[in-house]
Amino acid sequence: MRLYDNGFSSNCRKLRIAAAELELSLELVTVDPFTGAGRTAEYLAKNPMGKVPTLEDDGFVLWESTSICDYLASKRPERALAPVDPRGRADMWRWLSWYSMHIQPWMVTLVAELRFKERSGGTPDDGVVEHALRELARFVPVLDAHLTGREYVLDRFSVADICLGVGFESATFATVDLAPFGNIRAWLTRLQQRPRWERSR
Amino acid sequence: MRLYDNGFSSNCRKLRIAAAELELSLELVTVDPFTGAGRTAEYLAKNPMGKVPTLEDDGFVLWESTSICDYLASKRPERALAPVDPRGRADMWRWLSWYSMHIQPWMVTLVAELRFKERSGGTPDDGVVEHALRELARFVPVLDAHLTGREYVLDRFSVADICLGVGFESATFATVDLAPFGNIRAWLTRLQQRPRWERSR
Repeated sequence: MRLYDNGFSSNCRKLRIAAAELELSLELVTVDPFTGAGRTAEYLAKNPMGKVPTLEDDGFVLWESTSICDYLASKRPERALAPVDPRGRADMWRWLSWYSMHIQPWMVTLVAELRFKERSGGTPDDGVVEHALRELARFVPVLDAHLTGREYVLDRFSVADICLGVGFESATFATVDLAPFGNIRAWLTRLQQRPRWERSR
Repeated sequence: MRLYDNGFSSNCRKLRIAAAELELSLELVTVDPFTGAGRTAEYLAKNPMGKVPTLEDDGFVLWESTSICDYLASKRPERALAPVDPRGRADMWRWLSWYSMHIQPWMVTLVAELRFKERSGGTPDDGVVEHALRELARFVPVLDAHLTGREYVLDRFSVADICLGVGFESATFATVDLAPFGNIRAWLTRLQQRPRWERSR
């Protein structure tokens, strides 16, 4: 399997961690989504979003990191990195959807506004920043409460920990303070202690 | 199965349509997420997001509408409303994740800013509105291009059509102009012609 990858993309890091946990070998092809290779007609034919990651597996082309992560897990069912029963799968996709809908858009917005906008000559929009912080202030506590007395998002280490964990590791870079959320911080420490958990750059 | 539902919620409408397509009977319990029932400790214990919908199925409690929709499909595998093979499932969750991450947050933001904020004494934030419109302008064309020569999001009518279709039906209310997107408009018309497609209110 080939992964169109970028070392600085947290969405790609999810898949490198999943592959390491699953002992799956991925051929990594570096793509810069902002310039050059990521903008070619050839790449956009594979991934019309023009983003990374993209997975190619014997003619099957997949993008959106959460779905790729689950697909990788399906290659090694004996590792049980994703549930297979309907309730377990529904529980996993509840948390992956929750993260995609209520967390990641606002983290991405904060990084874009506060970390990258000035580099390209822009000025952060205070209203956009406050709106993103307000959404996160509403929803981050839901995961913190869920993790009370739990080691992982589901009953055991899974794709949900990889996707949400990598996402929440970006909180500091997104200027989101996790200090009030002790359960989330303890869970991130547990994930970071896993030998195959690749550290962020 | 019991669905905590609200007639005005498009996320609940997805599940009423899925249940109709699957000929599954749901006990509907109306909840107003903004007041009363949606704010009780009893309801928040089921759904800590304090939103609708929530599904209860013999002790299993599930929230996040896309995951519930897929779970309902798993109750009637013979109807094939969701793929069962890993590639088919990955393709479906690619589009559901794409919608959750790149479309719905901005549609919800526009509805909140432009339709509800003034009713509660606020003023729409131009920066927040422009940011949401910019995100949608970037990503809506990806679905329109994907639907070229296709009847449905996947190879046949599925959970992806229900979740994305109901979402895109809200575009006008969210002030998003679908006029330039002929493939999306034709697809919505096809969905609306299905006898079990409940119209929006």
